Formats: sequence, structure tokens, C-alpha cells
Amino acid sequence: LIMDGLIFRQLFEKESCTYTYLLADEATKEGVLIDPVLETADRDVKLIKELGLDIKFALNTHCHADHITGTAALKRQLPGLQSCISKDSGAKADVQMEHGHMIKFGAFKLQARATPGHTDGCMSFVLGKCDGCMSFVLGEARMCFTGDALLIRGCGRTDFQQGDSARLYTAVHSQIFTLPDSCLVYPAHNYQGIPCSTVGEEKTHNPRLTKPLAEFIEIMASLGLPKPKQIDTALPANLVDGEDVPPAIPAA
Amino acid sequence: LIMDGLIFRQLFEKESCTYTYLLADEATKEGVLIDPVLETADRDVKLIKELGLDIKFALNTHCHADHITGTAALKRQLPGLQSCISKDSGAKADVQMEHGHMIKFGAFKLQARATPGHTDGCMSFVLGKCDGCMSFVLGEARMCFTGDALLIRGCGRTDFQQGDSARLYTAVHSQIFTLPDSCLVYPAHNYQGIPCSTVGEEKTHNPRLTKPLAEFIEIMASLGLPKPKQIDTALPANLVDGEDVPPAIPAA
Ligand SMILES: [Fe+2]
Ligand SMILES: [Fe+2]
Repeated sequence: LIMDGLIFRQLFEKESCTYTYLLADEATKEGVLIDPVLETADRDVKLIKELGLDIKFALNTHCHADHITGTAALKRQLPGLQSCISKDSGAKADVQMEHGHMIKFGAFKLQARATPGHTDGCMSFVLGKCDGCMSFVLGEARMCFTGDALLIRGCGRTDFQQGDSARLYTAVHSQIFTLPDSCLVYPAHNYQGIPCSTVGEEKTHNPRLTKPLAEFIEIMASLGLPKPKQIDTALPANLVDGEDVPPAIPAA
Repeated sequence: LIMDGLIFRQLFEKESCTYTYLLADEATKEGVLIDPVLETADRDVKLIKELGLDIKFALNTHCHADHITGTAALKRQLPGLQSCISKDSGAKADVQMEHGHMIKFGAFKLQARATPGHTDGCMSFVLGKCDGCMSFVLGEARMCFTGDALLIRGCGRTDFQQGDSARLYTAVHSQIFTLPDSCLVYPAHNYQGIPCSTVGEEKTHNPRLTKPLAEFIEIMASLGLPKPKQIDTALPANLVDGEDVPPAIPAA
């Protein structure tokens, strides 16, 4: 009910602290998933069936390094579902999106915006209403799904996977910080239990992206983060749309 | 933006899987917290200060057995904050609420409804708008905070703390299932990463509360749940509003 007629659920996967977003049109029941996770694909399918939804697209904001996408598992259970990822990600998917691509479901649409820098192929999705024409009126924008480009009081790391902090800075400032201050920001992850933010909040309180570019680059270069636990299995799997994932070997 | 002019954040505490709800009036900045948790009190204060909010009340839906309330910690950092809990809980608080009590913040109000059965003092809170008069028009109800009375596809256990499954069944059916089907249900906990539901969804898909009373009582009597890990420290602390909690002893 953030927008009239919109069904919205911000689902959470605890191990990787990933948010999976379910959006659907209450009237037509058409919908999309953003960043589904392999481990929670069955939960998602159950909810989708209970709500009687027809999920058309499963979008990945980028080729994730910290979890395996749920797209392949969802496609096996939801016939007709198409996976989507940016062309620049280099990953396999049914739909390879470019900057400006529109994903429609019922009376709603998501506008894909290239926001590279964490990876080459990162995209953010801005929700709008279909109004006959395909133009996107910025004043309408109430929700933006930012993947790992803009996190709450943070941003995605830029030290692997084609990371480029100058590029990330420019992308966030030109593609996200130009949205209305009231636009809600929904990231791919949060580790503190905070579900969302707004463009205005991040323009004021983000400790990295409020800094001048040079200082931002310095901050990003000195983070010294550990390698993500799942990267060696997640990256190859996500490059082929989550297909052919060997069954998990239970811990001894 | 679920309701115009409402700031809303569904915060999460990972250990006990508890949701803490922040609600505030965008115009007056007055707000409330529902079910704050001791471990995340500092996070909550930081966010409240960044958003420039004036939090008037910290409400507990009931005397929790699985975590220590954050009310005392919040009161130390947010002068003027008043803690609220139902009179029937037997717990200490600045405001002891009875069925029908109204909590106002800016142009909004929460109507407290007695929904006992998990404990004697369980309350649910229905969000509405102040419209001059104090009457509550049900058709308006868009959000209900149900504590442990109604959980998503479940309900609070009834095997300790004055638990009474017949009483819980009656309370949910008379106080929550009479709200509009579209009313969003926000529980105190979810363990599957699903943040909310609707009254209509639970009236259709709740595997316990859709059953006849006798069957419900049987289901609740045969759950065989383990004792909550924190109950021996949480209950005494919550009975005194989270005050005098000894500092945590770090695990060896
Ligand atoms: Fe990532
Ligand atoms: Fe409880």
C-alpha cells in the first residue's frame, strides 16, 4: 500500500542478510521478484501461490558474490518466469537489460538504471506507474531498489568484481541522488536490521557518499574487508543464472 | 508512505527475530516505537536522532519472554519518552493501558486492543488518523501491530505465562479478523524472513486460526516447544520495564 494497488513484501534471507523484493499489481496479480536467493526460493514460491500471483520476471540487480541467485530454482517451479540481469554483468539470463529498460507488471513498471562501480553490471530499479506513455516522471518516484550500489549509510565494496569507486560515486550521484528526497531506498542488503532509507536521508547521512569524490575513493580503498565466504561458489553459479548448482553437502 | 505523512520503519533484531516498529508523523516529527529490544536500543536512538524525531512513547505489546525490552535504555537516552504496556500484563511502565486506550502522535493514533491468550496482557495496536473526534473508523485501518497474538501463518504459544488458547482464538477472531481484509498485519516476530501479512491472508491461510476452536486448542496443546532461551532473565527484567538489567557477562 505504499502505492495504491501495489502488493509489496520485503523478504529477508538471514545468512547473507539479503532482501528479496516481491512486487505485484493487486488487480492483475502480475508481479516481479528482485534478487531472489536460492535458499529461500521455496518460501517465495509458497507465498506467491498463496497470494495467487503470476510472477513474470525475476530480476537480479547484479551478479552477486555473497549468495546464489534463486532464479533457476524459481523457474523450475513457476513456468513462464523470465530471469533478467544487465547485459553488462556478463551473466546468463532470459532478458539482458540495458540502461533505460522497462519491466512492466500490471499497472506498474520498473525503470532499470545502470549504476555500475560495485560491479560493471549493477542496476537500480525505480518504480513507477504505467500511464499510457512510456515516459518516467521523476516526481512520481516513491521506491528505488538499489542493489549493492547504495546501501543504508553505506555502499557496495569496490575491491573486486570490476570494482571502481569513482564510477560508483558518479552513478549514485547521477542516477539515485537525483530522485526525490522522499523516494524510499531499498537495498539488496542490510546487516543492522534497518529495512530501508530515503534518498534525502542518504544525501544527508551517508558517511561515504556525502564526501567529495577524492575522499570517497580514499575511504573505499582503505576498507580492508575480508573475502565473501560464498564467492567461489556464488560467482560461477550466478554467471549461469543459478543453474547447475550441485546439491549442498551437509556439514559433518 | 503506507499512509500519507507517515514515516515507517520495520526494524529487526536478529537473535530473537523481533521486529521493532518506528512510526512517526512526517510533519510534527512526533512518533512511537513498538517493541524495542535492549540489544538494538543504540541503533534505534541513532536513527531517531538522524531523522530528527521526537519519540513520545515506547509501547510493548506484552511482557516478552524471549528478549529484554529496550524501554529503559531508550528512556535514558531520549528524555520525555514514556513506556507503555497493558495494565493486565502486571508489568511496570509509565502508562498502563486498558482496552481502547489511544496513543496519539501528530496526526496519527494507535488504538490499543486487548488480545490476550498468549499472555494475559497482550495488546494489538491499530493505526488510524486523528480526525478531530476520537472515534475509530474501521474502514480506515491499514496497519495492525499484533505482537505475539497473531503471527504470520501462526500465533504465539500458549503453554506458559498465563497461556490460554481458547482466549487467544476468541481475541484474534473478534479483535483482528474483524479488521478490513486489506489491513496489513505486522507481528512481533517472524522466523522465515517474511515481514508482514494481511488480515485477509491470515483469515485464509493461517494453518491454526482458520480451524474450528476445538481443533485450534488441540493444535496448541500438542506443539511441544522448547523453553525460550532468555526467559529466566527476560521475564523478571521486563516486569520492571527493562530497568536494573545487569551488564551482560561475555561468553568465555
Ligand atoms: Fe554484491
Ligand atoms: Fe511473547
